[in-house]
Amino acid sequence: MHSRPVLPHSVTIRDVGPRDGLQPEAPVPVERRIELVESLIAAGVSRIEAVAFVSPKAVPAMAGAAEVLDGITRSEAVTIAALVPNLRGAEMALESEVDELTVTLSFSETYNQRNVKMSVAESESAIADIVRSAAAAGVPVDAVVSCSFGSPYEGDADPAEVVALAQRLLDGGTTTVTYADTTGMATPRRIHDLADALDSAGLLGPSTGLHLHDTRGTALANAFTALERGISRFDTAVGGLGGSPFAHGAGGNLATEVLVAALDDAGVSTGIEIERLVDAALLVEELVGRPVPSGVAHQGPRTRRSAPQG
Amino acid sequence: MHSRPVLPHSVTIRDVGPRDGLQPEAPVPVERRIELVESLIAAGVSRIEAVAFVSPKAVPAMAGAAEVLDGITRSEAVTIAALVPNLRGAEMALESEVDELTVTLSFSETYNQRNVKMSVAESESAIADIVRSAAAAGVPVDAVVSCSFGSPYEGDADPAEVVALAQRLLDGGTTTVTYADTTGMATPRRIHDLADALDSAGLLGPSTGLHLHDTRGTALANAFTALERGISRFDTAVGGLGGSPFAHGAGGNLATEVLVAALDDAGVSTGIEIERLVDAALLVEELVGRPVPSGVAHQGPRTRRSAPQG
Repeated sequence: MHSRPVLPHSVTIRDVGPRDGLQPEAPVPVERRIELVESLIAAGVSRIEAVAFVSPKAVPAMAGAAEVLDGITRSEAVTIAALVPNLRGAEMALESEVDELTVTLSFSETYNQRNVKMSVAESESAIADIVRSAAAAGVPVDAVVSCSFGSPYEGDADPAEVVALAQRLLDGGTTTVTYADTTGMATPRRIHDLADALDSAGLLGPSTGLHLHDTRGTALANAFTALERGISRFDTAVGGLGGSPFAHGAGGNLATEVLVAALDDAGVSTGIEIERLVDAALLVEELVGRPVPSGVAHQGPRTRRSAPQG
Repeated sequence: MHSRPVLPHSVTIRDVGPRDGLQPEAPVPVERRIELVESLIAAGVSRIEAVAFVSPKAVPAMAGAAEVLDGITRSEAVTIAALVPNLRGAEMALESEVDELTVTLSFSETYNQRNVKMSVAESESAIADIVRSAAAAGVPVDAVVSCSFGSPYEGDADPAEVVALAQRLLDGGTTTVTYADTTGMATPRRIHDLADALDSAGLLGPSTGLHLHDTRGTALANAFTALERGISRFDTAVGGLGGSPFAHGAGGNLATEVLVAALDDAGVSTGIEIERLVDAALLVEELVGRPVPSGVAHQGPRTRRSAPQG
């Protein structure tokens, strides 16, 4: 009957744990945030959203971005990204010689207003300024579209409208777009819906990114559906941390180690060594002072064995 | 490129929460266990593993099985199942006029020894006794094969050998077989592997059951993979409770409300009303005195809305 779906040979994972994971937490000292980034690099993670250049008053957990970047051992093999909310943040990030900028805006007007106190149109305009500045420095910009699968305020997002927003961003010079399920409203069906809309617009391809949250237990099912549609770029957070403070009901990110363990078993290459990644997840646990929600962090990958006795 | 997979029109869910969910917990009074079963029935759950006829000394949380069954409002529309470990348990369950018996054995020798202090062959023999007794009473028997995707002791389970065990059980008069991922070792790939082996043996069909645990965050991804292979019978536990006390690293069952919410969105019928099911999950939380691990229990289905202001 049904044949086994063909998955991509390899997947690019951007670990957003040091930024999206730690942002809602009590501040972690700069040296320990550097340690976390280094532990991800040691596990083979090749793309890391390490910091955000945001107001330290508004977001104390993200203070010291330049210091964190200064402390990371940089190499050609690893792309270090910084989230920037505006031109000033972009200029600071570019001074710190980041490899990639990430910018965010929401498909949901209400969510965007709450998150950045701007309309979506105002965010698009702010992104245009950032893109110009980044282009001059030769640094790529990834736009993360939050609430790409809907919001608890406006309900479902029309995939065609999400794609239209993405097209405007790409036309404006954004290098790539990442579709974020900020409040856990994506399902396998909605992933197919968005993939269909992207496909119709000629935008479904290796650069298509997904940023999934596990609010309703769907994150890995959504990732596998996306893989079946040829999507091979994912944002995940080591340990599965990261709730949005602005949306009631937003749960943690898809845990990097949950995705990597499942991809390892599927024969999809990530370049990441799972047991060292589990070490990084346990470091996160130490940094935030409570257990992380990821089962793989605690039980290890499925290949881990118990002693036969006791 | 890839076409959208065809899913079954409807799915049968057996909620094992009152049994598998509560078994490792501190004992809950009989009246409250009746209340939980009734709340599941009220939500539209049509198949419920309500009790286990096991030694109350060994498993105090399952004491009072006959009293629980006596207290449940029975109807033609709802199948009430009892787990029985041996002929004596089966006879007690049949006296209580259950609609279905469930028996378990493990594909893993080590797990089986730890769980029931018998070899797998001894368990097969005990099941044969139960099947004869149930057949005389006209009651179907479902055999749940634990560790069908491997165990942390012996590692991977060979799907052909799992299917051979299932075939012996069916040849011996067992009505149906449910394949359990007791320690969270199933992945989409392993679901395909088992489905292929079942298909080769002519055993893949509507009566094929899966019992999934979310130990490594794979439960819903596994369920959707199974749906794509035409499997349409699932064991789940309301609230996502249920760790095995005998296997290090065994996590909770796939939460009924997580599966139902995702199936609702996929247009797959379950007969279950999600908001009433969430009520049952919140009752579980009250019964065990701590938050259940299910996001849908706390956030509701994706269709739930926040007020637009604050």
